[in-house]
Amino acid sequence: MKIAVVGLGYWGPNLVRNFLSTDQVEGVVACDLAPRRLENIKKKFPMVETTTSFDDVLRDDNIAGVVIATPVSTHFPLGVKVLEAGKHLLIEKPMASNTAEAEELLDRAYAKMLTLMVDHTFVYTSAVQKMKELIAKGDIGDVLYFDSVRINLGLFQHDTNVIWDLAPHDLSIMDYLIEDKPIAVSCVGVNHFSEFEDVAYLTVHFAEKLIAQFHVNWLSPVKVRRILVGGTKLMVSYDDMEASEKIKVYDRGVDVRDEDSVYKKLVQYRTGNMYSPNIDSGEALSRMSAEFVDCINTGKPSISDGQTGLNVVKVLEAANISIKAGGRRVDLSHLSRPHGRALYSIPTFEN
Amino acid sequence: MKIAVVGLGYWGPNLVRNFLSTDQVEGVVACDLAPRRLENIKKKFPMVETTTSFDDVLRDDNIAGVVIATPVSTHFPLGVKVLEAGKHLLIEKPMASNTAEAEELLDRAYAKMLTLMVDHTFVYTSAVQKMKELIAKGDIGDVLYFDSVRINLGLFQHDTNVIWDLAPHDLSIMDYLIEDKPIAVSCVGVNHFSEFEDVAYLTVHFAEKLIAQFHVNWLSPVKVRRILVGGTKLMVSYDDMEASEKIKVYDRGVDVRDEDSVYKKLVQYRTGNMYSPNIDSGEALSRMSAEFVDCINTGKPSISDGQTGLNVVKVLEAANISIKAGGRRVDLSHLSRPHGRALYSIPTFEN
Amino acid sequence: MKIAVVGLGYWGPNLVRNFLSTDQVEGVVACDLAPRRLENIKKKFPMVETTTSFDDVLRDDNIAGVVIATPVSTHFPLGVKVLEAGKHLLIEKPMASNTAEAEELLDRAYAKMLTLMVDHTFVYTSAVQKMKELIAKGDIGDVLYFDSVRINLGLFQHDTNVIWDLAPHDLSIMDYLIEDKPIAVSCVGVNHFSEFEDVAYLTVHFAEKLIAQFHVNWLSPVKVRRILVGGTKLMVSYDDMEASEKIKVYDRGVDVRDEDSVYKKLVQYRTGNMYSPNIDSGEALSRMSAEFVDCINTGKPSISDGQTGLNVVKVLEAANISIKAGGRRVDLSHLSRPHGRALYSIPTFEN
Amino acid sequence: MKIAVVGLGYWGPNLVRNFLSTDQVEGVVACDLAPRRLENIKKKFPMVETTTSFDDVLRDDNIAGVVIATPVSTHFPLGVKVLEAGKHLLIEKPMASNTAEAEELLDRAYAKMLTLMVDHTFVYTSAVQKMKELIAKGDIGDVLYFDSVRINLGLFQHDTNVIWDLAPHDLSIMDYLIEDKPIAVSCVGVNHFSEFEDVAYLTVHFAEKLIAQFHVNWLSPVKVRRILVGGTKLMVSYDDMEASEKIKVYDRGVDVRDEDSVYKKLVQYRTGNMYSPNIDSGEALSRMSAEFVDCINTGKPSISDGQTGLNVVKVLEAANISIKAGGRRVDLSHLSRPHGRALYSIPTFEN
Repeated sequence: MKIAVVGLGYWGPNLVRNFLSTDQVEGVVACDLAPRRLENIKKKFPMVETTTSFDDVLRDDNIAGVVIATPVSTHFPLGVKVLEAGKHLLIEKPMASNTAEAEELLDRAYAKMLTLMVDHTFVYTSAVQKMKELIAKGDIGDVLYFDSVRINLGLFQHDTNVIWDLAPHDLSIMDYLIEDKPIAVSCVGVNHFSEFEDVAYLTVHFAEKLIAQFHVNWLSPVKVRRILVGGTKLMVSYDDMEASEKIKVYDRGVDVRDEDSVYKKLVQYRTGNMYSPNIDSGEALSRMSAEFVDCINTGKPSISDGQTGLNVVKVLEAANISIKAGGRRVDLSHLSRPHGRALYSIPTFEN
Repeated sequence: MKIAVVGLGYWGPNLVRNFLSTDQVEGVVACDLAPRRLENIKKKFPMVETTTSFDDVLRDDNIAGVVIATPVSTHFPLGVKVLEAGKHLLIEKPMASNTAEAEELLDRAYAKMLTLMVDHTFVYTSAVQKMKELIAKGDIGDVLYFDSVRINLGLFQHDTNVIWDLAPHDLSIMDYLIEDKPIAVSCVGVNHFSEFEDVAYLTVHFAEKLIAQFHVNWLSPVKVRRILVGGTKLMVSYDDMEASEKIKVYDRGVDVRDEDSVYKKLVQYRTGNMYSPNIDSGEALSRMSAEFVDCINTGKPSISDGQTGLNVVKVLEAANISIKAGGRRVDLSHLSRPHGRALYSIPTFEN
Repeated sequence: MKIAVVGLGYWGPNLVRNFLSTDQVEGVVACDLAPRRLENIKKKFPMVETTTSFDDVLRDDNIAGVVIATPVSTHFPLGVKVLEAGKHLLIEKPMASNTAEAEELLDRAYAKMLTLMVDHTFVYTSAVQKMKELIAKGDIGDVLYFDSVRINLGLFQHDTNVIWDLAPHDLSIMDYLIEDKPIAVSCVGVNHFSEFEDVAYLTVHFAEKLIAQFHVNWLSPVKVRRILVGGTKLMVSYDDMEASEKIKVYDRGVDVRDEDSVYKKLVQYRTGNMYSPNIDSGEALSRMSAEFVDCINTGKPSISDGQTGLNVVKVLEAANISIKAGGRRVDLSHLSRPHGRALYSIPTFEN
Repeated sequence: MKIAVVGLGYWGPNLVRNFLSTDQVEGVVACDLAPRRLENIKKKFPMVETTTSFDDVLRDDNIAGVVIATPVSTHFPLGVKVLEAGKHLLIEKPMASNTAEAEELLDRAYAKMLTLMVDHTFVYTSAVQKMKELIAKGDIGDVLYFDSVRINLGLFQHDTNVIWDLAPHDLSIMDYLIEDKPIAVSCVGVNHFSEFEDVAYLTVHFAEKLIAQFHVNWLSPVKVRRILVGGTKLMVSYDDMEASEKIKVYDRGVDVRDEDSVYKKLVQYRTGNMYSPNIDSGEALSRMSAEFVDCINTGKPSISDGQTGLNVVKVLEAANISIKAGGRRVDLSHLSRPHGRALYSIPTFEN
């Protein structure tokens, strides 16, 4: 099969490179409106086919899957066309501009029985896989909180705020690790230099006693990328800035004992060893690429399928609503359309 | 003059030790209801006078100032008695249980022309003093955000939540550093093991484009105590867990230029050197003790006077309201009593 | 029993404090020629007896053990007098100025059946105890190297070089951890500002394929205190500057396989998890004090007995010889006196 | 001009990649005896010419410069042929197997007026350039010591010891930074698993009061790459494992004052700020490639010319001698051949 990559901006060339070395991929077609980008990719990877015509991509019967790596606002219209053309679809994160678009993509992929995946690269890292293993096996116990910090002197985006830029990474990790699903979101932030927030704090609420918080910031002088997951049995730190020892597992927890006579709880700490599992350093993106091909071939569900894409988009949309409302708590249930939802009119997309 | 320290739990003995070696303090009287604690302090510091009678302290004409280091709920009634007795007053943080109590203490101290101070120890550290200097001189430019993390596998308190336990440190630092005053507070958190929250995120809102956020957590496997202050000219990191190089000043900022032709802003980063000022390691508590004595003698205002204590308490009270209301934004203006406020009836406190 | 501490300079007061809270010690006598120091100790610890007369200490029948915390050059003459007086002896590190003195002290303690101990405080830390456990159980396998760095912007000493000042800590740890005994020493260094070296590198050679190296430096802008121990099965890092996680155990090693056909060895790495054992933070000095009292009572050997003191002094003496000889390897066997050694004439020490 | 790269093992492909994008280089010829390696390089960089014939490289008039990236033992014979063919020569570090070979290469390059350079990549890093600037301007004052640690769980080499594998990096940095030239070398080490040392400590002695030390180790569980340079005015730490802040400059030093009355020196510390200069992250190898082309064009000397290659090789050879002699100090003056040295017979090299 062939894979097409549409959009050769910052991330597209990485996708091209990875699909070129993915098993069972016989050719990669790169598509962009800008001829200069096509020349550049051709120079680096002479075996790549290039085209400026998205329609040609849709018409090419050898292309089984299409990867959309264009700006977020175009994910939905382009994605719809890919599915209409009967091709499997992989979309750069975030999957869509809002919940409605994301649900529509899911419906259509389901109706056509096509694979719909999102490039949540981080869930394919060995570090996150190791955390998933610890949580799935029950080693961590009940999860008490999920705390994420992703801050840096990052590039200001001209079409989105810091939440939509950075939080999808951590939201997809949370969605992958935590079985419970969020019920509400609150978010505060400030926009100092444009209409888009550059510092924000996003909180995800659950029905159970669990809280998740995401600090995203384009104005931090230091680069921090750390997730803490606290459980009743173990606690885990994932520091992506560490060259080695990214994951540290702390045998620390809380023991609660009921004291008979006084109807009082005794809360005590347990402090044991820390260990840092050895983690291979394979590239996450190549695992993601391989899974896309595998899902196309077998129809099996992906660990970052359309549903996970929808989950992330729903939180992002709620965050935008909350931030405008001064941090008010926004119920996620309000965002989904009632069952039997109408078909959206697909905007025409001039290629 | 003599100084009395009331309450010899965890922090009281440190206050005794410091006042013993403060210039112009001729004697320290330690007061606690528990004789065992008095014996212990006597064993360590034989020159200390001890008493179980708070009234004796109030009656002793040689005692010019009284330090209240008892549980928070007793700060107000004990403090009122100290002021009634015409003595200067230093209260452990937080100053009171709510805004009303704090304002009443201020009123009474003002009426009697007595010094009212709060033990916000951190504002006396060399690190915070250095940050104050940078901000006051204008080196940092406009402050864009204040981000604080104070997390640890801390002791569960049986009478308060993690916000009242840990946030006063960082709120007092913010109050000291930032000239603008907060207008509202929102706060989310979870209580896993008792009625008191053990993980919380507190946001302080300002009229200007400035946001302050405080992460406090008793359930973190790692100990983090870090404040980031981002300004338009410089950014500062204060990491209290570093043995040296606690303060790092980054010559990093944002340049915004108006581009004529397109009515568009161009946002650009500036990345320069980092430097870490050499900071002396004198004990903050001894500076605080010395300032109390100095304020008593001269009547000059303290850098952690009653007003700062009130500012901190107001945010804490608003945080409690917000957390119960699911993170709703709480206006601080609602908490203060209208001018010409009535005198509160002082609860009787049986010593 | 009573314990006397002779010499109240930098370290003596710590010894006084610890022996005051040691079980079975009924009183501590502090002895120094300088009355001002005695006043200071009395102020801090009013229950301490003080005297300027070393002879009084020797004559006091209630004093069972004497601690010598005076400058190194006086350790031997004072120690001899203590043993002559029939009292047990604990000497600050390093035990003596040279091998001859150290051996003489051992002989005399042995002849009188008195306890002779050295204050090698570090071997009583939980971190070193944990390393000892790992090595003793065979978990580490064969030790391949021992690498120590102890550097800092330290105080220049006026009577000794950086080797005698800092290396005894690490030499005593090595002596405690490594069963094999050194056969030779080589050492290089430079004295920039006085006759005493301020930067030095000391190498300890063994009969087996094992090397130990010690970097000591008074001129380092950063404070490093790290020991690496590499074994065939596990490798250990001990970083004393870490607040927690001082000890890290790496499941990393080398597998050597003989390849049949080619009479060639295949050397391969094994890279597994790292773990950091939880370590209590009890004060090492109080364990050392307790052991001295225990040894006095029971006659059992100490983990830092006179022999370990001799081992350390022998390496230090060899280092001084080597450094003067441009780093030449110095055999340790040459330093010891032949069996049946003559009694040394004891220099008169005017107290 | 064209550049030929001979030897496509671990490092050769990096050289090919860099010369491909170097200004004024019109083509790159890759030469290796193994056709498979040529296929691989062709696949990655289709525009590269390939050949298995070293003689063809020598005969190609369009090739102005040849890069030798083969095993060390072949550097000399291949290098001689390159110079004989009248081509400019860049050799991978270390330049040669011994001082005699290195000097012969220098003589021949000089006689033919050809550029002779060594790929000491580290001297082209922004970090080392910044250190050079500080030292050259006199900011650091007199250099007191140079301490280097380069340890890792590295690959065992089958034809050389850890010194020849790792120390050339740090020796070339020292040679670049320190104006004084070494007079002697001493070295100790252990070979645990083969005839080649896997742990070693190399000391470089100077006529002045300056000492340089290099710890190289293939058996360390942690990766450390740090250089400390202590000066009378400033001290510098270069930590290559830091993502940012690789260079830290400490305003710390030693003040020595003569005290009149007592003919005694007073040695005092000065502790000031630390700062970390912002350093660009350009690739050092591309600067090295550009300089080779520049030297070919202009005849100007390189910062890593043949003389620096010789300086490094001389220390390495002396280290090997010293290590066999138990760490004995080896005078570097003995290694150089007397002036008017005979021509070496060039071993025939079968391509």
